Amino acid sequence: MRAIVIHEAGDLRVENRESGAPGPGEVRVRLAAGGVCGSDLHYYNHGGFGSVRLREPMILGHEVSGHVAEVGEGVDDLAPGELVAVSPSRPCGVCRFCGEGLHNQCLNMRFYGSAMPFPHVQGAFREELIADASQCVRADGLSAAEAAMAEPLSVGLHATRRAGELLGKRVLVTGCGPIGVLAIVAARRAGAGEIVATDLVPNALKHAAAAGADRTIDMSESPDALDAYAADKGYFEVLYECSGTAGALSNAIGAMRPRGVVMQLGLGGDMTVPMMQITVKELDLRGSFRFHEEFGTAVKLMRSGLVDVKPVISHTIPLDDAELAFRIANDRSQSMKTQIAFA
Amino acid sequence: MRAIVIHEAGDLRVENRESGAPGPGEVRVRLAAGGVCGSDLHYYNHGGFGSVRLREPMILGHEVSGHVAEVGEGVDDLAPGELVAVSPSRPCGVCRFCGEGLHNQCLNMRFYGSAMPFPHVQGAFREELIADASQCVRADGLSAAEAAMAEPLSVGLHATRRAGELLGKRVLVTGCGPIGVLAIVAARRAGAGEIVATDLVPNALKHAAAAGADRTIDMSESPDALDAYAADKGYFEVLYECSGTAGALSNAIGAMRPRGVVMQLGLGGDMTVPMMQITVKELDLRGSFRFHEEFGTAVKLMRSGLVDVKPVISHTIPLDDAELAFRIANDRSQSMKTQIAFA
Amino acid sequence: MRAIVIHEAGDLRVENRESGAPGPGEVRVRLAAGGVCGSDLHYYNHGGFGSVRLREPMILGHEVSGHVAEVGEGVDDLAPGELVAVSPSRPCGVCRFCGEGLHNQCLNMRFYGSAMPFPHVQGAFREELIADASQCVRADGLSAAEAAMAEPLSVGLHATRRAGELLGKRVLVTGCGPIGVLAIVAARRAGAGEIVATDLVPNALKHAAAAGADRTIDMSESPDALDAYAADKGYFEVLYECSGTAGALSNAIGAMRPRGVVMQLGLGGDMTVPMMQITVKELDLRGSFRFHEEFGTAVKLMRSGLVDVKPVISHTIPLDDAELAFRIANDRSQSMKTQIAFA
Amino acid sequence: MRAIVIHEAGDLRVENRESGAPGPGEVRVRLAAGGVCGSDLHYYNHGGFGSVRLREPMILGHEVSGHVAEVGEGVDDLAPGELVAVSPSRPCGVCRFCGEGLHNQCLNMRFYGSAMPFPHVQGAFREELIADASQCVRADGLSAAEAAMAEPLSVGLHATRRAGELLGKRVLVTGCGPIGVLAIVAARRAGAGEIVATDLVPNALKHAAAAGADRTIDMSESPDALDAYAADKGYFEVLYECSGTAGALSNAIGAMRPRGVVMQLGLGGDMTVPMMQITVKELDLRGSFRFHEEFGTAVKLMRSGLVDVKPVISHTIPLDDAELAFRIANDRSQSMKTQIAFA
Repeated sequence: MRAIVIHEAGDLRVENRESGAPGPGEVRVRLAAGGVCGSDLHYYNHGGFGSVRLREPMILGHEVSGHVAEVGEGVDDLAPGELVAVSPSRPCGVCRFCGEGLHNQCLNMRFYGSAMPFPHVQGAFREELIADASQCVRADGLSAAEAAMAEPLSVGLHATRRAGELLGKRVLVTGCGPIGVLAIVAARRAGAGEIVATDLVPNALKHAAAAGADRTIDMSESPDALDAYAADKGYFEVLYECSGTAGALSNAIGAMRPRGVVMQLGLGGDMTVPMMQITVKELDLRGSFRFHEEFGTAVKLMRSGLVDVKPVISHTIPLDDAELAFRIANDRSQSMKTQIAFA
Repeated sequence: MRAIVIHEAGDLRVENRESGAPGPGEVRVRLAAGGVCGSDLHYYNHGGFGSVRLREPMILGHEVSGHVAEVGEGVDDLAPGELVAVSPSRPCGVCRFCGEGLHNQCLNMRFYGSAMPFPHVQGAFREELIADASQCVRADGLSAAEAAMAEPLSVGLHATRRAGELLGKRVLVTGCGPIGVLAIVAARRAGAGEIVATDLVPNALKHAAAAGADRTIDMSESPDALDAYAADKGYFEVLYECSGTAGALSNAIGAMRPRGVVMQLGLGGDMTVPMMQITVKELDLRGSFRFHEEFGTAVKLMRSGLVDVKPVISHTIPLDDAELAFRIANDRSQSMKTQIAFA
Repeated sequence: MRAIVIHEAGDLRVENRESGAPGPGEVRVRLAAGGVCGSDLHYYNHGGFGSVRLREPMILGHEVSGHVAEVGEGVDDLAPGELVAVSPSRPCGVCRFCGEGLHNQCLNMRFYGSAMPFPHVQGAFREELIADASQCVRADGLSAAEAAMAEPLSVGLHATRRAGELLGKRVLVTGCGPIGVLAIVAARRAGAGEIVATDLVPNALKHAAAAGADRTIDMSESPDALDAYAADKGYFEVLYECSGTAGALSNAIGAMRPRGVVMQLGLGGDMTVPMMQITVKELDLRGSFRFHEEFGTAVKLMRSGLVDVKPVISHTIPLDDAELAFRIANDRSQSMKTQIAFA
Repeated sequence: MRAIVIHEAGDLRVENRESGAPGPGEVRVRLAAGGVCGSDLHYYNHGGFGSVRLREPMILGHEVSGHVAEVGEGVDDLAPGELVAVSPSRPCGVCRFCGEGLHNQCLNMRFYGSAMPFPHVQGAFREELIADASQCVRADGLSAAEAAMAEPLSVGLHATRRAGELLGKRVLVTGCGPIGVLAIVAARRAGAGEIVATDLVPNALKHAAAAGADRTIDMSESPDALDAYAADKGYFEVLYECSGTAGALSNAIGAMRPRGVVMQLGLGGDMTVPMMQITVKELDLRGSFRFHEEFGTAVKLMRSGLVDVKPVISHTIPLDDAELAFRIANDRSQSMKTQIAFA
């Protein structure tokens, strides 16, 4: 079978790998769709991020769906032919944090396509994948492309659940890449009353509006637009910071009202923040990282029609042209979520 | 002007009353629509409920909308002709609970159409109403009928906010009168993943389904239907108990999973509850009473199209036939929300 | 070795049982102290409670401490001779609720001395106990009697954590058996500003005062004493209901202020509650059942001197007179926590 | 009467001012004790902080107690001669945030001794003070010095309440000035299981230990001491950051466990923070600013003996030597809380 392997920054190859047979509790999945994520791009563009660096070739990818090809011993709730969304999250189940139900904080996490441990955790961009049955969520009624959106949607749902109830609330989203746009989708689904979204790229804002933002602001054209929300100590009750930039965060904090909640999803490095404002307005800045049980919720909400992710998918590229998919995903002026078709 | 006055159980009259002029900060509203609520029916059917009894004639009604006819001194954010939803909640603003922001718990509340204090607080079923400008929420773009739904919708929103975030959660609603149906509307808006509704009356369940319930159960036909949800300590994460009956609550508690949240909205008297189950499953039973800031949220959600209450309104009866409206509202086999048209 | 075995109501025997050797990950504990709990008394007095009935002889007991006598393979953090508090809670670690960190709600719980499943889960009142090392918490610096209090103290801590922060708050405790008294200890430790305790028995109230209650009320002498707290919608912010009786709960609810928290620890059966008041005052009634991670916290707080449980222990009876211990524990007019000395 | 007036940085004078008579609802307080706070020092040392600058002479001081000298009309719960703690917090009671119960976020706050609005809000370091009766909390049984500690203790209590329940938790405090030390006092009272405190000054750490810290770390001697707490994603569940320095915050974040709570009390300006760690560990960083209802709680806890602030008071200087008090307060190597004796 073929797999998409990153060797070093800029060196992406479609290579052959051995497939395998499912052991007890496992299934063999014939991959259908895979979305290119920002972390995949980091490996492709820079060979890693921060202290996380490629040290050996690694199969990329963690946003995938496919059809069950074969089930291992003891797997009786999945059958060959079924479409499944495959969660890339494989917590150990026994460490301190798993024991507390904080599976996304597992001390021994093996998340697909991650260079964090060494040897690296190989990813899911491959024609065939051996997965635990418990990673697979049945996705009947969805397209494979939608099913492969379960992963990034889960990130938005996780942040939304951590933000607390949103019914009728005023929400600001800074940074409208796929995570920002899916945060809009999730916030709208959770009942947000008003959603304002900012970015520097018109294409991103177009998708934000399609996803449900009531107002979009191009900060490259109106860099002071949020000032109007800063009167009387601020306007927004919830912020999803999805850009990972200090400038966006600082700017947004001025528009947050006292006791507002700042969900930090964007992964930047060290950031200079206006801590005096955070303290005096008693803001509540919460990190949000990945997800766990929200993966099943994501599939459920899509299947019931309560969430529609189709408009978020901008491009679908065949496996043969994998590197093209990465180049398109790199271009924010034209793409939102770029997926690779494996079958 | 004419008003709908209850004298004692069964004695409802349309009578003439003097109108007035708005003082500073007040507005005169020409009433358009008024919904008949369960508490109005209690006065009509029984002359009160529990220890709350009619002791003098009282104008009924607290779910109203109308058009601004005249504004008093200092009112500059409302203009004659505008449609407004009028909140019946008039907390004092200075007692201990108002000081803590718990306005619905005000020690000196003057809620329209309530026989709790004496002299009674006269209600809003009258052709003209002098209200504080702060009670009036602009409702452009809504019909008067929709605007008059802001009040019961607020009850559903308040309970939903108190229930915490609902994204993808499994919700049970027992009792599908207008409050139960609006709880379904609110829960769906807040992202509930699955909603099951129970009642004893087919007409109620028909409305529950229209409002978004995924499954409806006629407990008169399938009294044991919830048992199927009781396996493995239970299924539902949130219950809205809107029937006010001990039987519905007890039955539902068996279907609640550990740590589930029970929102009690139904106003029954003393109830026998399975306290052992509540304790052992560590359920969280929370009373929910009226609303405050949710009134503005209700109008906002309707105006933005995020919530649609039109299907909940089953009948509209002219003021001249006021008593007919009460008789229809009494008949759960045919009506859901019955409104009176004042103009 | 000898063990305390209940055969049926009133038939308690000290019998010989085989001891065993610790397997991998296990330890053999030479028991030192064991407290008689209300559930032990239920088996002794009534042969069970509710639908939980004795169907075969069962060793009683779940509040125990002892000294490590032997460690199994792979146990390297415990050494022979060390005093340990032994948690009776043995969740499966793999069911849905364990996976969420709600171990006390485990679907396959094997809690010492419980007739809930059949065959029954044998208890810990035995001279030697084979336990998982993970159940054992090192208790250096404590007496064996104190260490055996870790279990009931954990119940109080669990309820206190579920009640939320208590700093400076007004707390009511109804029912001052060992659980009520330890709830007082926990609430005081958590910063409660004012604690009022009620019971019908002077001896219980004497212990409540010693544990930190600011005021104690003998409800048999002053049945209306809580009425004074009912003005202006009530006074107390938190209630620990530890009596398991509907009368105490109903009475206390009248004294609770709006949005107050009612922790229900007392295990009664069906109870008639003033649901109208719960709803209108928007109380928050939360069941609290057993504990999990609080067991380690209990030992830690005792070892650091932050909590003192010694005054709660009223009697210590040698194993030979086990039945005497049960008779004393039954007599609330003279005892609080009665323990059995095993060595 | 005499008052302590700051004219510009370094120009502190004891000047005469007119006293006044209490109006309706007011009292005249004969000042007894006043604590020098960090913000007083900022005016004295730098003429302000950040954008808040002195523009006219201003009486300093906001941590005060005194004896009621005269009561105005309608004040019947205070009598001449009584010792009172006087809250410097005077929210308007009518703005949006007061209406929500967030009085410390009042849009029109008049906090004693603050140069934020112009004309400045004059402070309380004066021999006589006209205050609203509602600002005065009866302090019988306390010394005047203790009563004057109610204000900074309230800051610690407010942060502690916002941190959520602390029973048995592991707490880190960075920066052991009076606020850090009172945070330790508050955290211990709230049941913290283990408290580690850091500072760069031995005298500060000595007071931290006296206040209840289990371990103190001199970061100037052991700059890497917190690294030992960073294993397995971190150790502490709650951090009180009281230094207002980016270095202390960054260092501490490495020692926080996932989902830990960071209470930011220290008022620094812009800070560079390790946002990647905050995001990935899903920390919850909450600003905490001043207090409101905690003022009464502070007095209550001191009066009942549940909190002892006496060891925090290091120096008492007569009014005549006011500038000496400021110089001592400036010297962290010898002082903790320096108070001025007004009578």
